[in-house]
Amino acid sequence: MKIPQGFLLSGIHCGIKKEKIDLGLIYCKDFSKAVGFFTTNTNPSYSVTVSKKNINRPIKAVIVNSGNANCFSHKTGFVDTEDIITKLAYVLKAKKENILIASTGIIGKRLPKEKIITGFPELVKNLGEDIKPFSASIQTTDTFEKIVSRQVLLQKGKGSILGFAKGAGMIAPNMATMLSFILTDIALPLPVLRQCARTAVTKSFNSITIDGCMSTNDTVFILSSGKVKPDNKKDKEAFIQALEGVCLDLAKLIVRDGEGATKFIEIEIKGAKTENEAKAAGLAMANSNLLKCALYGEDPNWGRIIAALGHAGIAVKENVGVETGSLKQKDIKIKVDLKHGKAGWVIYTSDLTPEYVKINAEYS
Amino acid sequence: MKIPQGFLLSGIHCGIKKEKIDLGLIYCKDFSKAVGFFTTNTNPSYSVTVSKKNINRPIKAVIVNSGNANCFSHKTGFVDTEDIITKLAYVLKAKKENILIASTGIIGKRLPKEKIITGFPELVKNLGEDIKPFSASIQTTDTFEKIVSRQVLLQKGKGSILGFAKGAGMIAPNMATMLSFILTDIALPLPVLRQCARTAVTKSFNSITIDGCMSTNDTVFILSSGKVKPDNKKDKEAFIQALEGVCLDLAKLIVRDGEGATKFIEIEIKGAKTENEAKAAGLAMANSNLLKCALYGEDPNWGRIIAALGHAGIAVKENVGVETGSLKQKDIKIKVDLKHGKAGWVIYTSDLTPEYVKINAEYS
Repeated sequence: MKIPQGFLLSGIHCGIKKEKIDLGLIYCKDFSKAVGFFTTNTNPSYSVTVSKKNINRPIKAVIVNSGNANCFSHKTGFVDTEDIITKLAYVLKAKKENILIASTGIIGKRLPKEKIITGFPELVKNLGEDIKPFSASIQTTDTFEKIVSRQVLLQKGKGSILGFAKGAGMIAPNMATMLSFILTDIALPLPVLRQCARTAVTKSFNSITIDGCMSTNDTVFILSSGKVKPDNKKDKEAFIQALEGVCLDLAKLIVRDGEGATKFIEIEIKGAKTENEAKAAGLAMANSNLLKCALYGEDPNWGRIIAALGHAGIAVKENVGVETGSLKQKDIKIKVDLKHGKAGWVIYTSDLTPEYVKINAEYS
Repeated sequence: MKIPQGFLLSGIHCGIKKEKIDLGLIYCKDFSKAVGFFTTNTNPSYSVTVSKKNINRPIKAVIVNSGNANCFSHKTGFVDTEDIITKLAYVLKAKKENILIASTGIIGKRLPKEKIITGFPELVKNLGEDIKPFSASIQTTDTFEKIVSRQVLLQKGKGSILGFAKGAGMIAPNMATMLSFILTDIALPLPVLRQCARTAVTKSFNSITIDGCMSTNDTVFILSSGKVKPDNKKDKEAFIQALEGVCLDLAKLIVRDGEGATKFIEIEIKGAKTENEAKAAGLAMANSNLLKCALYGEDPNWGRIIAALGHAGIAVKENVGVETGSLKQKDIKIKVDLKHGKAGWVIYTSDLTPEYVKINAEYS
């Protein structure tokens, strides 16, 4: 897979983790336009707080660490984080306001700032077109790397999108954080990019759930280097389709790698009053421990769907439709027709298994 | 344990379950005042719908079945349920409006109405002061019966409270329904009884959670025969204290019998802005799968508390206090001081275990 024009990547081991690569860098040769989506958890990582401040500026680099959430560890966490991006800006001859940061790992332990800063010269020296070291730097206990790319054929020439994600497959450091970094060389005005990105993220990363727990660190960055200019509306549509495809594929990969998961479950709601109701119905089902256990056990206990919908305040009648294929498959599709409207939504989730409990019961 | 004055009980096998007692009756010699609390699930059991209609009337009897939730099975479910209480009223020479009904069991299967109605003569004939058959009639796969009683010493004479509960320990029929029936002979004006009952239920049954799933059938009935007249404010206070004790003890027994539970967890929140915030904080922690798995594994992973609080929108600072005893004990107490106010609340829950998943993965 090739990197979209205008970006370089690197990843090194700086010492947050014992051995594995734990520090990654995305470098923009010029400035990129950026769109960011962050956890709504009200006790966020200092990295989230700092990135929220900078996200509306032209972006020069994104620094990412794994192995430590940089969250809720000490009173000067925010200042420390600003210091990290200041030092990186110095090495890159940029300003700290043009740098984004994301972290994933255990909450409550102080980030080893000096190790990270000491690693910057090597990290910058290693910048290149190899995507592997960066991809490795964002992993924790994911069982496979999550990289998706799309070529976008335009009226004249072509552009590309390359996306990375880390998912919900962590033992230590114990939080199922979702991070994703999506790079494109296709130029779009920032308001248009924001709108496309919001739709793509809503349909993908915000339509998956593993265990209903929300991380302090969830972050999605979409960066556009603007090196490839689309021509017309058709080009824009090709970009949107590709972006939505990249986001959805990454989101599905996260679900497939869900902690202890044995099933990939697609819940399609139709017949809802509104898209919001359809989404709420799908999430209520996807977050029901009882239903997720039944699906693990391949037990067609549809009463649990009714209970889950009612718990979420979605009243249905006895004519509600439930369709499903064989529960013995690894991929299960459940279609629910609420029969009181015309809107629909699709949610993706995994089952709840004894292995999930074991993974999350192990020492931090 | 003795029955409070003015009540008789019975329980029989009518054939909903294969062998076990499955139909229970509470009979009021005269009329009782009643207070009821029902699930807020918007797809409730027909029994809940019917009882909600009758709860504000003087009550002559409560009919309870286990083995079938009487929920979401067919379009005439409501009419069938009205028919059941009409037939019981006929046998008791009462009116259907004075009868309450509660059910627990699998959702989506039609209640065998004829078996229940055929059982009425025997059920009524067996009415007496033995509490065992009634207690058995409300159980499903609870691993122990949950009965609590209190004597209430008044200025002149004494009264009593007797409470039954069934809890969250069901394999088939697969829904963790909470039912509770609380009887007292102490007379109180209905508005006063309602207020005491609301407080007692809020602090007990509404402060426990097993898996965050809400049943279609949850019901609490508190019945007062009015045979014993309290004298003054002191007597009223003695009653309130006893009622709160009965409700809290029953609620704790339900948690102890939680599906697959190995730990009994008390979460005490203090330093909250309001009682509502304290309760929300405790429930957010008690419903976090990640935290419940950590407690099962005796893993002091307090970052998960911060993540759970933030998911519920409760922002805290790094000075938040977390105190706990040994996680190796069966009973674990966690004290969290939010440090931004003076209100508190206590929530009770169990851990999330591989056994919970196995129980709920088995066939319906």
